[in-house]
Amino acid sequence: MNWGVLIFPNVEELDFAGPWEILGMWSKFSGGPDKRLIVAEAYEPVTCAKGLIVVPHVSFAQCPPLDYLLVPGGEGTRREVYNPALIDFIAGQAKSCRAVLSVCTGSFLLHRAGLLNGRKATTHWGSLERLRKLGDVHVEEERFTRDGNVWTAAGVSAGIDMMLAFIAETAGERAAGIAQFAAEYYPSSRAYGDFHTGPDAPAYLKK
Amino acid sequence: MNWGVLIFPNVEELDFAGPWEILGMWSKFSGGPDKRLIVAEAYEPVTCAKGLIVVPHVSFAQCPPLDYLLVPGGEGTRREVYNPALIDFIAGQAKSCRAVLSVCTGSFLLHRAGLLNGRKATTHWGSLERLRKLGDVHVEEERFTRDGNVWTAAGVSAGIDMMLAFIAETAGERAAGIAQFAAEYYPSSRAYGDFHTGPDAPAYLKK
Repeated sequence: MNWGVLIFPNVEELDFAGPWEILGMWSKFSGGPDKRLIVAEAYEPVTCAKGLIVVPHVSFAQCPPLDYLLVPGGEGTRREVYNPALIDFIAGQAKSCRAVLSVCTGSFLLHRAGLLNGRKATTHWGSLERLRKLGDVHVEEERFTRDGNVWTAAGVSAGIDMMLAFIAETAGERAAGIAQFAAEYYPSSRAYGDFHTGPDAPAYLKK
Repeated sequence: MNWGVLIFPNVEELDFAGPWEILGMWSKFSGGPDKRLIVAEAYEPVTCAKGLIVVPHVSFAQCPPLDYLLVPGGEGTRREVYNPALIDFIAGQAKSCRAVLSVCTGSFLLHRAGLLNGRKATTHWGSLERLRKLGDVHVEEERFTRDGNVWTAAGVSAGIDMMLAFIAETAGERAAGIAQFAAEYYPSSRAYGDFHTGPDAPAYLKK
């Protein structure tokens, strides 16, 4: 099983590092993918939105056919939606992928690659209106959404929750639980300030 | 304000990437540190425990005096406790740091650097007994601990919770809330399977 995780300049770190960690725990402890690849347009270091520098495992040209592709978001998506090499890579791989997943504003890249037309999807709270304005996406203000073989997560950290749900769905509750326990992912429910109940907060936080 | 985040071979990805993301949001939106540095022994790519390859910003030799140092964990710590260059770096920087923080088994590196003697600390659930056996640490089975200017977090993902608590403590609730909202860190409370209530689960999960 080949898992690809896309990166590009100004990708948001936790968007991919969260799911990457959970994927790794799934592989190490409960039968997850044997091949996990960080993929970028070129085989050279990529500087992320908060300054982390990551070396991809393969370039688009070197990348084998993927069974699953995860597309993170971040400021860089504003440029990458106009990068035909990246959009073609997503669209081309998606044809034979069993599932494609996005985190945060990665959903705009999926949309550009033609994967969200008429589908349910979400994004970071700060980009929900922008996603709605595309006109052909059923925007849901949820922590993550699934519509057939396309999964999308809300902002940044939501990719972790989506990844665990994905594992539970495809490999069972026990496999997800083992990965969750290994990553000790039982987060505090502490919310600082009132931002989660403010006017900009997504609907799932107000339920 | 100089923030250093240590990495080394087989460091656990989310141990540092989680706090790194929160630090970055704090800097971008609510007055966090202007200088955030990934530090490694040498200025060359480091392969993490789950295969991510990261290029540090500076080597130990190039690293300026730090105000804060975060030490992640991972399998690599089993080797690094015997690496005098790394332990000396932690001990040396700690002398003038306003605070030193660890995530997961990073606490074993703090201990080796002489920072946990007689102090409260925690680690990943799978290493709690090992931390107790060191004999001079007051091990607490909490999501994170603080003892003066030394903070320690439980396994992997717990570093995110610690980082937000640290910001709230040093810069106020509002600064922490802004970073939390930007990272949309309002995680699902879903626990897959019964691992969090099993015999290996840390005490804070059974409260």
